[in-house]
Amino acid sequence: MINSTVKLGHNVVIKEGVIIGENVIIEDNVYIDYGCIIRDNVHIRKGSFIGARSILGEYLMDFYKDKVNKAHPLIIGENALIRTENVIYGDTIIGDNFQSGHKVTIRENTKIGNNAKIGTLSDIQHCCSIGNYVSIHSNVFVGEESKINDYVWIFPHVVITNDPTPPSDKLIGVTIEDFAIIAARSVLLPGVHIHEDALIGAGAIVTKDVAKETVAVGNPAKEICSVRKIKNKFTGEQVYPWRYTFKRGMPWKDSDYETWYNGLSI
Amino acid sequence: MINSTVKLGHNVVIKEGVIIGENVIIEDNVYIDYGCIIRDNVHIRKGSFIGARSILGEYLMDFYKDKVNKAHPLIIGENALIRTENVIYGDTIIGDNFQSGHKVTIRENTKIGNNAKIGTLSDIQHCCSIGNYVSIHSNVFVGEESKINDYVWIFPHVVITNDPTPPSDKLIGVTIEDFAIIAARSVLLPGVHIHEDALIGAGAIVTKDVAKETVAVGNPAKEICSVRKIKNKFTGEQVYPWRYTFKRGMPWKDSDYETWYNGLSI
Amino acid sequence: MINSTVKLGHNVVIKEGVIIGENVIIEDNVYIDYGCIIRDNVHIRKGSFIGARSILGEYLMDFYKDKVNKAHPLIIGENALIRTENVIYGDTIIGDNFQSGHKVTIRENTKIGNNAKIGTLSDIQHCCSIGNYVSIHSNVFVGEESKINDYVWIFPHVVITNDPTPPSDKLIGVTIEDFAIIAARSVLLPGVHIHEDALIGAGAIVTKDVAKETVAVGNPAKEICSVRKIKNKFTGEQVYPWRYTFKRGMPWKDSDYETWYNGLSI
Repeated sequence: MINSTVKLGHNVVIKEGVIIGENVIIEDNVYIDYGCIIRDNVHIRKGSFIGARSILGEYLMDFYKDKVNKAHPLIIGENALIRTENVIYGDTIIGDNFQSGHKVTIRENTKIGNNAKIGTLSDIQHCCSIGNYVSIHSNVFVGEESKINDYVWIFPHVVITNDPTPPSDKLIGVTIEDFAIIAARSVLLPGVHIHEDALIGAGAIVTKDVAKETVAVGNPAKEICSVRKIKNKFTGEQVYPWRYTFKRGMPWKDSDYETWYNGLSI
Repeated sequence: MINSTVKLGHNVVIKEGVIIGENVIIEDNVYIDYGCIIRDNVHIRKGSFIGARSILGEYLMDFYKDKVNKAHPLIIGENALIRTENVIYGDTIIGDNFQSGHKVTIRENTKIGNNAKIGTLSDIQHCCSIGNYVSIHSNVFVGEESKINDYVWIFPHVVITNDPTPPSDKLIGVTIEDFAIIAARSVLLPGVHIHEDALIGAGAIVTKDVAKETVAVGNPAKEICSVRKIKNKFTGEQVYPWRYTFKRGMPWKDSDYETWYNGLSI
Repeated sequence: MINSTVKLGHNVVIKEGVIIGENVIIEDNVYIDYGCIIRDNVHIRKGSFIGARSILGEYLMDFYKDKVNKAHPLIIGENALIRTENVIYGDTIIGDNFQSGHKVTIRENTKIGNNAKIGTLSDIQHCCSIGNYVSIHSNVFVGEESKINDYVWIFPHVVITNDPTPPSDKLIGVTIEDFAIIAARSVLLPGVHIHEDALIGAGAIVTKDVAKETVAVGNPAKEICSVRKIKNKFTGEQVYPWRYTFKRGMPWKDSDYETWYNGLSI
């Protein structure tokens, strides 16, 4: 099953039915569960877990023309936790500590930073850029050319579009700045720019840019107030910007945002 | 393939490529199609069908830390019809006569009653409660802590949320009472309470509780009338409460709701 | 693995782990990737590619009653490109040059024309009719009884419904005429008729018919203008009807719509 072009680290677990192509590198302590297909030129860095029946290094369009797999390397960073049945294309790079749900699709020429999470059924199209500590929940569609910066939260069933006059060949991706929050089921129209710490309400249809620290809701979405006006239902305390009130999984989880940030600047 | 800790009933069919873990109980007349993965501590009750490549007893988060599978039992009730590529976690209980579409995900600590149906691609998060005779259609997202009572209908692409100030650690689940109907593509915001026989219109964004037998539509959803005012387009007859006009698959299918209900009370 | 009732053409590639049922016809130059399940009575025409772990000829409801697979033939036209993990039922016919994304579901008694495309996660229910050169993007739900004519574009997360008073047994499918465009995340309510060259805006909830060459947006959707008023953001030129401004993948790709159309009429 494993050919001579594969480089295997120490303590690698490969369960039954896994298929491994050529020029594959699997570093130490990687665990590959039942029935995965690892196509050519995939590099899985140390400590990563690849869930059952995931397909890594999936074919790009050129394969289908002549059934010859060209060099389209995929790199999966250290300590990934990829759940079952993900399909991740070649020519993509994923940073360290990545986590995904089940049945996620990530296409080619996409770059994902460190500590990113992508939920079950989400579909990340090609030529996207996703930053560090980005959390994308279940069944989000991220269209081609989207640029998502760091610490962004995207909740279930959000759709990020890119074609102002469909069908066309002139796509304009959406940009989402650091710390922005896109609530469930909202739609971002082509080319909109969501600024830092903005909050897009559930089900909003966002047709225009949304300013920094601003809440936008409705169809079409309208800016209604500063995020600083939103109170926690239980405590009555200010919630946003969330970096000051939420720390689970964040680099400031052991202290607080300000302490951590000041430590960085030293 | 089958180890000595597995208890197999009579007339069990296990097709090629099925992987079965430890302490698994498979009762009489169960059929397990090609390539399923049955992890440890799964109990499949009699007469159930498990579709190709389904994964039962899927790992919880603790597995990924040390790659040791702790005891997280999953029980599938009698006569289930689970279609292909479902992923159902451990620590969950599913009642009798369950039916699912393709590629459904059901997470841990969730309890599903008898005669429930869940459609293709639906994603049921952890710590949910789903009653008897609940019908959930395709690609519905049911967030953590949701409580769905009996005879509820949820149509395609509905999203049920739970975090009032995302991201946060204080989730408040939605509650849906008996006989309520949630039409396609609507969104229920955290903590809303949908009362008995209410009807949520397609695409509604529900931000507040909806009263018994009331229709709510729009973004944000507004209560517009009693469900009793809605007429069938063909016959002009009153449609709701639907228990008096619809019987397919219901316990009153051979008579009518009132006769059945009166029989129960005797 | 391959029984005597299977007819295999020349130059067929069948990768590891493929399961093939009875009365299957696989024509010349077909490529079947790892782990596909081809159930009985499937006919794959020449030059088609079947992505890893796709299931063709999937069981209909009658199978589950007695575990006997009746004759429900599936025909896949020439030169299909079916990506991984599609599930396509029996009693369905797909034309030539079909392309699909990953994890697509297509149910029974559905007819799809030539040169159609269906994106990742889309779910096509039974008894639908989909024309030639139809492009359905990611995660679209097409309800039972939908009728989609030729050259229609449907963008991500659109939901096409069919039950005016759910739950009921009286479904009325949606009809979409040639060249219409349904933008992302919109919902078409039961029985609506979208006329030729109409454009449904992103996130619209369409409750009534939409006239020819008309733009409809909002919840509930309102007709706001002629499609002829929409300008390209970059060039300021008229965009719609799109057949005059877009040609990629279309039969008029080497000239223009008028030249091609006039050539047809000769």
